[in-house]
Amino acid sequence: MEKTQDVYHIRPIGTVRRNGDDVCLEIDEPFRPAMRELGGFSHVMVFWWADRFADEEHRTTLQMNPPYAEDHLTGVFASRSPVRPNPLGMTTCKVVDVDEAEGVIRVADIDAFDGTPVVDLKAYFPVCDRVQTAHIPKWLVGWPEWMPEDGIGLQPGEA
Amino acid sequence: MEKTQDVYHIRPIGTVRRNGDDVCLEIDEPFRPAMRELGGFSHVMVFWWADRFADEEHRTTLQMNPPYAEDHLTGVFASRSPVRPNPLGMTTCKVVDVDEAEGVIRVADIDAFDGTPVVDLKAYFPVCDRVQTAHIPKWLVGWPEWMPEDGIGLQPGEA
Repeated sequence: MEKTQDVYHIRPIGTVRRNGDDVCLEIDEPFRPAMRELGGFSHVMVFWWADRFADEEHRTTLQMNPPYAEDHLTGVFASRSPVRPNPLGMTTCKVVDVDEAEGVIRVADIDAFDGTPVVDLKAYFPVCDRVQTAHIPKWLVGWPEWMPEDGIGLQPGEA
Repeated sequence: MEKTQDVYHIRPIGTVRRNGDDVCLEIDEPFRPAMRELGGFSHVMVFWWADRFADEEHRTTLQMNPPYAEDHLTGVFASRSPVRPNPLGMTTCKVVDVDEAEGVIRVADIDAFDGTPVVDLKAYFPVCDRVQTAHIPKWLVGWPEWMPEDGIGLQPGEA
């Protein structure tokens, strides 16, 4: 309990840019050396700041009825909702192209709006995150067992 | 570039506790309602604050020679190192048991030290993060294609 008064500071390292089907991450100049070798990976985990949900009302919302199971009251930690105490989004993205000099990472898609601040990137290592025998609750049975080829994007009408 | 002056605030929601082979996440009381339904998932992604690497020296280190490829200068975004501009760690953990009332999530293992602050939890959804055809750079070939059954823990001598 003693730690609940602590506050940590994070800063953007780039921005999500959407232009029709063209989706990329623009990385701010000071951070571009950190992109070295990222182009050798097929996927990258993109950590972003859900700035539309960073107000106190959203940050104190701990349970919700998700759109895919509206009759099922769910804790935000059991979801991927951007509504949560620390509004961090995380999307696994397929890497299309990396230009370290220009600071541009083109990705197949991402479920974040144009202009969303990016706060971290981590290469996707199968040894860390590719789970062979994962299960989800019975009320979600029927969901795909794999990420779609191009990953998860915005829903129609959201962009 | 205009966003680089922004600062976002995040706060701990719990703490990593290690006691020999017993590894759990203690969730602070105010946040326990957010755990609802998490017990139905086999795995959880644990977001933690790498407090041992949160000083300016580590936060301005953008490239390093990783211990698994010491001759290979690598950007921190192409790694899972806790050394990075925003010292967020993220570990996919196998869930052993969830006690919402007590605020305890027992996990098989995690590569974070005892006392590490936890800042977010996201249920592992295969549709989001289980990538069917992922590849890593040639200089890492030979690494496992799956997460180990119990996940990633600390290295001997680190605890």
